[in-house]
Amino acid sequence: MKTVIYDKNKDLEKLLKRNDDARDDIRNAVLEIIKGVKTDGNAALLYYTQTLDHCELTQLQVTEAEIQEAFDSVPDSLLDIIREAAGNIRAFHEKQLETTWTYEPKPGVVLGQHITPIGRVGLYVPGGKATYPSTVLMDAIPALVAGVESLVMVTPPGRDGKINPNILAAAKIAGVQEIYKIGGAQAIAALAYGTETIKPVNKIVGPGNIYVATAKKEVFGKVDIDMIAGPSEVLIIADEHANPVYAAADLLSQAEHDEMAMPILVTTSEDLGKQVIAEVYRQIEADLGRKDIARKSVDDFGFVFIVNDLDEAFELSNQIAPEHLELLIENPMSALEKVKNAGAIFMGAYTPEPLGDYFAGPNHTLPTSGTAKFSSPLGVYDFIKKSSILSYDQRCLGDVYQKIAAFARSEGLDAHAKAVERRFEN
Amino acid sequence: MKTVIYDKNKDLEKLLKRNDDARDDIRNAVLEIIKGVKTDGNAALLYYTQTLDHCELTQLQVTEAEIQEAFDSVPDSLLDIIREAAGNIRAFHEKQLETTWTYEPKPGVVLGQHITPIGRVGLYVPGGKATYPSTVLMDAIPALVAGVESLVMVTPPGRDGKINPNILAAAKIAGVQEIYKIGGAQAIAALAYGTETIKPVNKIVGPGNIYVATAKKEVFGKVDIDMIAGPSEVLIIADEHANPVYAAADLLSQAEHDEMAMPILVTTSEDLGKQVIAEVYRQIEADLGRKDIARKSVDDFGFVFIVNDLDEAFELSNQIAPEHLELLIENPMSALEKVKNAGAIFMGAYTPEPLGDYFAGPNHTLPTSGTAKFSSPLGVYDFIKKSSILSYDQRCLGDVYQKIAAFARSEGLDAHAKAVERRFEN
Repeated sequence: MKTVIYDKNKDLEKLLKRNDDARDDIRNAVLEIIKGVKTDGNAALLYYTQTLDHCELTQLQVTEAEIQEAFDSVPDSLLDIIREAAGNIRAFHEKQLETTWTYEPKPGVVLGQHITPIGRVGLYVPGGKATYPSTVLMDAIPALVAGVESLVMVTPPGRDGKINPNILAAAKIAGVQEIYKIGGAQAIAALAYGTETIKPVNKIVGPGNIYVATAKKEVFGKVDIDMIAGPSEVLIIADEHANPVYAAADLLSQAEHDEMAMPILVTTSEDLGKQVIAEVYRQIEADLGRKDIARKSVDDFGFVFIVNDLDEAFELSNQIAPEHLELLIENPMSALEKVKNAGAIFMGAYTPEPLGDYFAGPNHTLPTSGTAKFSSPLGVYDFIKKSSILSYDQRCLGDVYQKIAAFARSEGLDAHAKAVERRFEN
Repeated sequence: MKTVIYDKNKDLEKLLKRNDDARDDIRNAVLEIIKGVKTDGNAALLYYTQTLDHCELTQLQVTEAEIQEAFDSVPDSLLDIIREAAGNIRAFHEKQLETTWTYEPKPGVVLGQHITPIGRVGLYVPGGKATYPSTVLMDAIPALVAGVESLVMVTPPGRDGKINPNILAAAKIAGVQEIYKIGGAQAIAALAYGTETIKPVNKIVGPGNIYVATAKKEVFGKVDIDMIAGPSEVLIIADEHANPVYAAADLLSQAEHDEMAMPILVTTSEDLGKQVIAEVYRQIEADLGRKDIARKSVDDFGFVFIVNDLDEAFELSNQIAPEHLELLIENPMSALEKVKNAGAIFMGAYTPEPLGDYFAGPNHTLPTSGTAKFSSPLGVYDFIKKSSILSYDQRCLGDVYQKIAAFARSEGLDAHAKAVERRFEN
């Protein structure tokens, strides 16, 4: 971990090495795959699953029997935990529900906003070594709470043609019924353009590797997508009272995700900074399961920033715009107004990041790599859309139609002017 | 205009010829420009403005004196109309404001959602033949209502190095102070990556030509963007009581925008359909200012669909997902629940589209080309973001930490499990 005395004039992005360069070789491969799926549909999906996932499928869709078999293979104790987590996630997201509203700014005029769910949504769930049933809950439940009628999940099969049973069990608990064994750019293409058997969707959400992310960006416009996920980060703001053991453990829970994950401590206490660094390496060596990944993340992307005071800590944090922000400080709730950019805010010593990753209810699909400057956690609002409502009666339009006509003519739009004038010609 | 008897089994997208193919030549030109601006900053902006906009600038930023001069040159009558429209737009968008909320699902647990405005936003305003001060109002006001602290506008200069005075007057009325004379892909690159004098933004909104749209898609991820705008459309659902003169005038107000604009009538009355077509061509010939554009739009992209009943009309409309939906039917408000996909809904004979384009208050930046299936009018919600709030006390985390640890271990994430366990080791 690098220790850095914070200086607001330093180029922070350069220091953090967060990168946004697109890679043309990947894009070209992805475009080829998308073209293949648009042209050849299911045949292309089977071909790419064979060549890229090394799996020869005879059927793309996961059967009800497969889902049930997977479900039955998961221990009841884990099913109960998944159910309880799903309940918490549902309860939180129900608070985000919006409803249609109208109002009368004056008699004869009604304005408003009509809320409707998106019709059909595709959910990408990564396969491979790391399979996350929690992500199935986090992505599917807000869509279903929003009222999405048609929800489809895609996830790449293993070489044996099977899907991780915990993924299928989480899907069953969340309420996802339509599931296909496809992954990568080919799955994104199938969701965006459809095939003989897969109906195209209106929006695609969920994390994935660089091929998935590139394909999502490519089909954006044809369908909507959620934010493109990069390496994730945690930033802990800690004062001198913080427990270094907790801080180190929380940094490592981020670091174990990915060698490019970014664990950052920002502290007013140089002493605490030293203790946390020592504790991080102690915990890695002592008993950590994924110690090689965690060590590389900590070595290459770990930072301890020393700041003069909490105001400076929040200033720095807002510049970094972390996916996860932990406040290991006195009275964290009173510091809320200082937070300008963060995916999720974890308050106090007993709200560690994994509580939010799995259980508390708020979404764990969060804006990464600084995108919290302009985007939000996945939520019900990602699965609804708005239509403006306008209604004027004859008298109210009569009061203003000449102004509308004059404004339209100032823009050179004659037919716009005439559309209001023709209503009052006689 | 083509008359079509609606058949739900026909391929609607093929009939409408709405196209989503990207063009590689344009993308390559745009990538070159973005690279130039990233490398050479202001010098690249001056170079591209000279070669593409045929304008030799010495200064990029519009001065206060230029804004004042433009403002003073606009007739007071038009300024008053712009001010009144701005007031209506502000009043409507204030209804969209959201505030931070928290709640206690049980004692010791606080969850919630923290609302913050996006820090800095770039607003693209097209130049060229069509200059739309109304778009300045529609894009700037929601951002300012949301609380965006730093708002910057870019718009290409004419060959004389000037900006249309109505655009500058509208910017002054809306409250935009920082304005640069740049357009095209180079302006989007400058907003996304910054130059020596232009600070980068977090989000870019506003319509533009294919180069602007391609550049926006390219920088998406580095910054957020609003939906990519395509040719716009109006769809009018009319029953046998509708006035064919109004319907024709409203179709033409869409058609005059663009040769690729799409004016669509959906009616239960074949007789009305015939009357509207006759009236459309009569109005074009009689007195329409932009008759050549309107005629081409009507000839190539105009449709009259004949349906059996209103349910079928709404089914078709929801498939098309029009930017503007006009309901020239009895009791339009009672049909609201049938609308699933539409940018804005204009109710009844005295709510023509231009009322919404200029004056009523709801936004005129609307999802085009069927994107109303997954996106919304521009609104205050486009300029805010959310951060989840989580707070557990020791007892509440103690109640559930073993479940969290078990869930984490089922995903192979050992450090996640340990982060909660270490808090209860003693």
